[in-house]
Amino acid sequence: MKGVLLDRALVPLATVRRSTPRRQGPDAVVDAVAATLRELDVLARSAARTVRHAGVVVPGIVDEPAGRALRAVNLGWRDVPLAAVLTRRTGLPVILGHDVRAAGTAEALVGAARGAREVLCVAVGTGVAAAVICDGRPLTGAGLAGELGHLVVAPDGDPCACGGRGCLETVASAAAVEAAYAARAGRAPAGAAEVAARVAGGDPVARAVWERAADGLATALAAATTLLGTELVVLGGGLAESGELLLAPVREGLARRLTFQRVPRVVRAELGEAAGRVGAGIAAWRAADGVPLAPVPLGRGPVGVASR
Amino acid sequence: MKGVLLDRALVPLATVRRSTPRRQGPDAVVDAVAATLRELDVLARSAARTVRHAGVVVPGIVDEPAGRALRAVNLGWRDVPLAAVLTRRTGLPVILGHDVRAAGTAEALVGAARGAREVLCVAVGTGVAAAVICDGRPLTGAGLAGELGHLVVAPDGDPCACGGRGCLETVASAAAVEAAYAARAGRAPAGAAEVAARVAGGDPVARAVWERAADGLATALAAATTLLGTELVVLGGGLAESGELLLAPVREGLARRLTFQRVPRVVRAELGEAAGRVGAGIAAWRAADGVPLAPVPLGRGPVGVASR
Repeated sequence: MKGVLLDRALVPLATVRRSTPRRQGPDAVVDAVAATLRELDVLARSAARTVRHAGVVVPGIVDEPAGRALRAVNLGWRDVPLAAVLTRRTGLPVILGHDVRAAGTAEALVGAARGAREVLCVAVGTGVAAAVICDGRPLTGAGLAGELGHLVVAPDGDPCACGGRGCLETVASAAAVEAAYAARAGRAPAGAAEVAARVAGGDPVARAVWERAADGLATALAAATTLLGTELVVLGGGLAESGELLLAPVREGLARRLTFQRVPRVVRAELGEAAGRVGAGIAAWRAADGVPLAPVPLGRGPVGVASR
Repeated sequence: MKGVLLDRALVPLATVRRSTPRRQGPDAVVDAVAATLRELDVLARSAARTVRHAGVVVPGIVDEPAGRALRAVNLGWRDVPLAAVLTRRTGLPVILGHDVRAAGTAEALVGAARGAREVLCVAVGTGVAAAVICDGRPLTGAGLAGELGHLVVAPDGDPCACGGRGCLETVASAAAVEAAYAARAGRAPAGAAEVAARVAGGDPVARAVWERAADGLATALAAATTLLGTELVVLGGGLAESGELLLAPVREGLARRLTFQRVPRVVRAELGEAAGRVGAGIAAWRAADGVPLAPVPLGRGPVGVASR
């Protein structure tokens, strides 16, 4: 996990990293988050600064208004009142958010989606999830919105961890690309990055795997665009590190699928892996400034953000 | 077209009907809308009432804040500044809305979706379109949101009028159900209602057509639910007149497709074909009361609505 001390203009003053003790169980992860917050607080004090508010963003299903992590399968959390627990453990006011939605808000305010009102910010990493911005507001859907990775793009496709079949995650996550390449090539690649390098080098097995991933993304994004009137797709996460190698076929696949709909632009995320913690900082500054919680129009960020 | 004079509690005081002169071109349709508004204004005056605001809802792509009908294929409109034109022609303040979104807002405020925050109100008629309510707000997506009828549910399916293939509208609209029955049975049914009656009566051809329609709806609704965290699906329009005959298989299809997602309840629309004009009335009362335009939280309706 990563933590950052951000001033009002979202300039990072200090960054800390700590491994996530997943194997030691859900409580150990909460302990580690609390320790990270305390470490940042100490760093702030040593720079004669005061932490106004802490923003913590986590994966899974998050009830933001209630400050509860309803479910995070990888961390073993089930309905943890995380904001309250962390406040008790650190003495800091804490606002809880969702990692992908927070990253999307960050891209929308200070990243690749500045000024856009209808946006899908998609994180294509181990899994696939999206922050949905519609009418200039990030949607929460009671903490459930944005599960783009579980749109079915191959009705008779592979089983998905969710219990379904042919979900986007089974063809277009970094994990799926690695697994598909390993299955076809007979040996495990050094991550999705190796598959991307082989695509660029013309390896036909890598190309087939890659095309299937881009095609799946285009199918899911076309569905989302049809429902939401999306004008801009921001792709981030591991698989998007390859840049145009992924963006170009997704763009083509979208243009091919959409008919009367506006075809969204497809761009790469700008904030990279910092997007989540910048989003956490935006949530914290909003809370410190008393801006009401979601759904918040994106224009009303902290002064330092809006004026950047 | 239908017009209604609604008091603040949305009680209808007078209703008028006028045929839509589609064949006489786009201007004639505008003339007919203006005549309908003038007729309602005369009726109001004769009852010693004053029209505070007019709400006009139309199909197609509508830019609500600008009061422009950007595109309505069936009416031949292309970027008509309808609110301004109608105000000039009638002397009434006019607010423009979208027919399906207005119907959804009406169902959400005074119909089947009262109190729900994550809703899809689906009109299954000649075409299929949805009003999307997320976080308690109707989404507009710059006038483009809600094209549920053009989610692809049969990738190698029939050509759609939109230029695509296998869109939901090609299997689950009233028109598609009639056409599919006619093609398989060798004779045209008396509307989708006859097909529904034959389903109830055990006709195997009708059953196959019906099952395909319900299955397509479930596929599209599962995708929308995955993206939006939908808790409630409200089905209206011609095909939903059959009630449980459609609702039950859609419900089953949804439950079968969703895994970790919350399975939305599926209910029938309550306001029937009046939903659009009640929605227009809500928009008009909101405008009269100075409530800001979309996205508006649904709780802030006119007093008479909120207290019903």
